[in-house]
Amino acid sequence: MVQKATASYCDFRPHFKTHQSATIGEWFREKGVTGITVSSVSMAEYFHETGWNDITIAFPFFAAQIEGLIKLNQSCKLRLFVNRAEDIQLLSRSLTNDFRVYIELNTGSNRSGIHHENRLQIDSIIEACSKLENVHFHGFYVHHGGTYKARSKEEITEIIAPTLSIYKDLKAGYPGAKFSLGDTPSASVMTTFDNVDELTPGNFVFYDWMQVQIGSCTLNDVALFSLLPVAQVSKDNNQAIVLGGAVHLSKDFVEDNGARNYGQVVNIINYEITPAPLYLSALSQEHGTITGNVETITGNHVVVCPIHSCLTANLHDHYLTTDGKIIDKRILS
Amino acid sequence: MVQKATASYCDFRPHFKTHQSATIGEWFREKGVTGITVSSVSMAEYFHETGWNDITIAFPFFAAQIEGLIKLNQSCKLRLFVNRAEDIQLLSRSLTNDFRVYIELNTGSNRSGIHHENRLQIDSIIEACSKLENVHFHGFYVHHGGTYKARSKEEITEIIAPTLSIYKDLKAGYPGAKFSLGDTPSASVMTTFDNVDELTPGNFVFYDWMQVQIGSCTLNDVALFSLLPVAQVSKDNNQAIVLGGAVHLSKDFVEDNGARNYGQVVNIINYEITPAPLYLSALSQEHGTITGNVETITGNHVVVCPIHSCLTANLHDHYLTTDGKIIDKRILS
Repeated sequence: MVQKATASYCDFRPHFKTHQSATIGEWFREKGVTGITVSSVSMAEYFHETGWNDITIAFPFFAAQIEGLIKLNQSCKLRLFVNRAEDIQLLSRSLTNDFRVYIELNTGSNRSGIHHENRLQIDSIIEACSKLENVHFHGFYVHHGGTYKARSKEEITEIIAPTLSIYKDLKAGYPGAKFSLGDTPSASVMTTFDNVDELTPGNFVFYDWMQVQIGSCTLNDVALFSLLPVAQVSKDNNQAIVLGGAVHLSKDFVEDNGARNYGQVVNIINYEITPAPLYLSALSQEHGTITGNVETITGNHVVVCPIHSCLTANLHDHYLTTDGKIIDKRILS
Repeated sequence: MVQKATASYCDFRPHFKTHQSATIGEWFREKGVTGITVSSVSMAEYFHETGWNDITIAFPFFAAQIEGLIKLNQSCKLRLFVNRAEDIQLLSRSLTNDFRVYIELNTGSNRSGIHHENRLQIDSIIEACSKLENVHFHGFYVHHGGTYKARSKEEITEIIAPTLSIYKDLKAGYPGAKFSLGDTPSASVMTTFDNVDELTPGNFVFYDWMQVQIGSCTLNDVALFSLLPVAQVSKDNNQAIVLGGAVHLSKDFVEDNGARNYGQVVNIINYEITPAPLYLSALSQEHGTITGNVETITGNHVVVCPIHSCLTANLHDHYLTTDGKIIDKRILS
């Protein structure tokens, strides 16, 4: 991802919400990364304490953030998402040092952000920034969640295309503004990034079964798995029970011909990862129900590729590497 | 629930997986509770350290539990779910002191447990217990997840009826065995418990929006809510963004006419709780999307009744009471 960003003259400002780990953060630093993206003030505080001094908080500003931001702004370069001119003024009064502002755009995925056609609101924010000494309008940010509905590289490219064309138009109207792209599927499958100045993917650090379904990666690219102890195997109804519930994996699922898959069992042999004929068909708090050919379960545990690695990682306080090292992370967003 | 259990001559052995809090555990102790139910060895360790000495681990035994169980068994009365005679022998060899065994039955909900008609396996476990000095067969346990599919008191009663009739039959065949019932919906709506010796509900301590839908309780019975900061209100598309995502609430939902509800916004006035015309229609990691009449959002936050309070509670390290007290809890199952 570093090489790809460099080749396209894009800044690379990875989202750290997926791993939430100071140690894994260091691996990025070794690759030359100096600025990062997070999703909350508390996550910014965690990474600032571990030596990161240039942080984007990729969540719309709300008033209760102020105290945390005042403190962070004393020693950390901040980039904030602000949707209203009055919030720009509030932030300018409250924060002593300079900070930068992104306008998050809604280009069709209908989560947060200002609709890209709402030029009145966009311009009011930029104008508010221009009048205040410690505020700098940085540019535009899009996380297009729509690419998560894609099921092939072609579909990802099709879904992100209108956003890139909106960026092209805005680039003409707002010279000097930077254009940032947030989602992992686009960053994974695109090879050139015209009209984009910055990439901030997060999930790609681990990937997961959902990203395999989307077409962002192959199963061999996935770097996070759950080792689940087998508690019961019932050959009568081809079902097994594992210790692996919603509190371990989260309750995200992908739908496969109408059946919900809460986690794909895999075989890993010499770092070759292949799907097993087994998947988690139901989760309660601690129980996972495995459906499929349970005759293939031979050991005391199964290895599961999580559906959504960000949420699975969030439920654990450390990682274990394949060579037995423990990697700490923060807990509880 | 204490009064109801007493009136029906049932032991009351509440499941503590919902609150996971030593302080809330004390409230139960004040009501005379001496034995509890948990779902993992680590949860048993937490509550044993806070003074509980009679604990059921309501999850099928698996080999990796052994070390934890050996330690717990030195100072804590244990009741374990064991599905295989060879595991009874393994446990007997490993644990120094006495322990009790439940046979978990599958009476139709098809999660863990032995199918109630599989008398061969049931008898092999009871026989294994009878031959070993430190093992005592205690009785049968059913958590019938099927009641979670009910949408009225009548449906709950209908769904649990076959289990009670199975209990009646088994009671004749296994004199001396105790019969335990685990699910919150049954414990909530039933008034008499023939052929049941023990109730172990957990969720009822807080209830949630799912239990309101099931018919276990009313909204006024719910005791856990999430206060979510409002980050953006878009009157164009009747949508608001709150800080409240899968890492705060979990990703459980109920379906309402095909639409997913990830959390019901409520109004609380003088402890009267009523649903607002707003609900969480989508969740990503940190963002919650609120759909409905956003004109009714007037403050800086919304109050949300979680879909599944066990999972929401699991994602937080403390509770805040309405009179401003912080109640600690354990984190990360």
